[in-house]
Amino acid sequence: MARRLAELNTPCLVLDRRRMQSNIKRMAQRAASLGVALRPHLKTCKSLEIGAYLAPGKKRVTVSTLREAEYFADGGFRDILYAVSIAPARLPAVARLNAAGARVQVLLDNPEAVRQLALSAADLGCGFEAWIEVDVDGHRAGLEPEDPQLVELGRGLQSASGIELRGVMTHAGGSYNCRNMAELEAHAEQERQRCVAAAGRLRAAGIRCPGVSVGSTPTALAAARLDGVTELRAGVYVFFDLFQAGLGVCRVEDIALSVLTTVISHKKSHRRLIIDAGGLALSKDRSTAGQALDCGYGLVARAADGRVISGLSVSKVNQEHGMIELAHVSDFDAYPVGSQLRILPNHACMTAAAYEGYSVLDSDDRVVERWSRCSGW
Amino acid sequence: MARRLAELNTPCLVLDRRRMQSNIKRMAQRAASLGVALRPHLKTCKSLEIGAYLAPGKKRVTVSTLREAEYFADGGFRDILYAVSIAPARLPAVARLNAAGARVQVLLDNPEAVRQLALSAADLGCGFEAWIEVDVDGHRAGLEPEDPQLVELGRGLQSASGIELRGVMTHAGGSYNCRNMAELEAHAEQERQRCVAAAGRLRAAGIRCPGVSVGSTPTALAAARLDGVTELRAGVYVFFDLFQAGLGVCRVEDIALSVLTTVISHKKSHRRLIIDAGGLALSKDRSTAGQALDCGYGLVARAADGRVISGLSVSKVNQEHGMIELAHVSDFDAYPVGSQLRILPNHACMTAAAYEGYSVLDSDDRVVERWSRCSGW
Repeated sequence: MARRLAELNTPCLVLDRRRMQSNIKRMAQRAASLGVALRPHLKTCKSLEIGAYLAPGKKRVTVSTLREAEYFADGGFRDILYAVSIAPARLPAVARLNAAGARVQVLLDNPEAVRQLALSAADLGCGFEAWIEVDVDGHRAGLEPEDPQLVELGRGLQSASGIELRGVMTHAGGSYNCRNMAELEAHAEQERQRCVAAAGRLRAAGIRCPGVSVGSTPTALAAARLDGVTELRAGVYVFFDLFQAGLGVCRVEDIALSVLTTVISHKKSHRRLIIDAGGLALSKDRSTAGQALDCGYGLVARAADGRVISGLSVSKVNQEHGMIELAHVSDFDAYPVGSQLRILPNHACMTAAAYEGYSVLDSDDRVVERWSRCSGW
Repeated sequence: MARRLAELNTPCLVLDRRRMQSNIKRMAQRAASLGVALRPHLKTCKSLEIGAYLAPGKKRVTVSTLREAEYFADGGFRDILYAVSIAPARLPAVARLNAAGARVQVLLDNPEAVRQLALSAADLGCGFEAWIEVDVDGHRAGLEPEDPQLVELGRGLQSASGIELRGVMTHAGGSYNCRNMAELEAHAEQERQRCVAAAGRLRAAGIRCPGVSVGSTPTALAAARLDGVTELRAGVYVFFDLFQAGLGVCRVEDIALSVLTTVISHKKSHRRLIIDAGGLALSKDRSTAGQALDCGYGLVARAADGRVISGLSVSKVNQEHGMIELAHVSDFDAYPVGSQLRILPNHACMTAAAYEGYSVLDSDDRVVERWSRCSGW
């Protein structure tokens, strides 16, 4: 039964299903046109219902925590790349999921992890599938393609009993520092070349390396070609956010996720509108601070239809208070105490993490469904 | 049955019970010596078990969300000040809690809220207790003591049927910008004077205003006197954090809360240790950035005993990765992949919010209890 926005308890996450479906379609078409498989990253949505839109066959997905792996495996998802360097203590839990058919694959980039993986396989009497993480831009973790340790790890995995090397993977997180589409396209090409080079070095050493997995939402949308790559990973495109809009890979009108909030006070002496979405409801992510348009803690949109209100952003947050500066005292009349607004997030992954679920809107902005989320570790 | 830290799934919150009890005792003694009642704010801990330490009689507490009010009321707490401007739509839920005996009091600072409160009391056939929010430093919400609207609100509340004005309250959030104890003491005195002045103006107008409630952890610890004040509110002192240590109101050794994390990779080319506590596990709060010691996303401590490791902080976070820069490549040997560390939080309220509970340590750093938390709205 459809509900109205006004009936929702705020702050809460509202999701524009039509925009989400359009974003999902765009990335699926992109992967198809580049001739690679898509392995959506579910760390942004952490939702079974949304996961089923992203991966209609419930196969070939990416997660960032063991909790997500368990949640999606319980929900019937299979072929799950757990794309954060594996902590050895989590291997028994991975083995349990695999015994139930989930095919969770682990990621590693260091000899200690290889050693522990081999030990666990022997101890638990099971097999493991693994990917080697490659560093293409110094962003985070992984081995550079030129690092001699890459081939050593490959040999270690190949020689260990019960371990299968699925391939090499990278995340070009450095793309978040690009300033325009030309830079993004160049970064995507660097990501492709260096990850393909890593696979080439392993293969030249006689190590079987079938997969080459690359991705980040910006490089996925900017890449001109993906020759040599087998699959593309991306996550935040499902909702998009202000940071992605600032990068130029989506429009603000594509952002499918927002926080519904209520005006709770008028601080007229400071021309300050106070809302019930603060640092916990919006997150303290300030990623747009370094972009051409600093969106504060989020841009303000009309509750009824999600249209951005020009010039309004959340300029300051406390734990449960958000503050919006108005240009004129007369502007308060448009936002009475008790009225609702929507806040578009800087970083959808961070903002969504504070909530237990999504209120899903149809194209008439009626609340038609409630979708779940997992959280924690 | 006691467990070892090594058995915990990371990232998780660990709480040093001895330090917490010492922090609680310090604030209780402070309120007693200042001659005022203490109304602990439970928004930091959001935990029934910790709430019972903070308010042993389960009476006279503060909360920041309706969810907290419900959670603590269900747990037997009474006399609950819901210290965020009330959204009119939440009044029926407040009335339900009060019908069950919780005595939840609402906060307001504007005529629309007074109007809605009176309407709801009539509609629901119930009474409400209310506080008027006073602004002492321009920090957030509330009416300045000189604002003519203060007396108007007081009259509106006094004349409405079923509404009882409990008093005036303020939060001197501006104290977070102070740089030393002298400034904090001056800010505490400003908070006291201005809140007492607001009560005086109401009383002079013939409006009954029994309560004068002030507080923030820094001003509570810095105030030289609280003449005219009836109660003190504070929350983060239960754990303290790096921001409070930077303000000078606690020592780093007093911080009772930390995030237990696992080393998951060595990025040797960048002398970068990678841990499984990232932006979600630590929060993106960067409040120490403006202080003398910028702690990044948190200081690093030894897992076994919580002692800070000199010179190490989390310098960068992604969603599930934290990065720690080491001074020398040889330092990696001390932190093998799979080993644990603790991260002290910049802002305990924000960091704790990502978790479902606390692993509680006794004085030998054994895990002796698991305490609950509520979250969401």
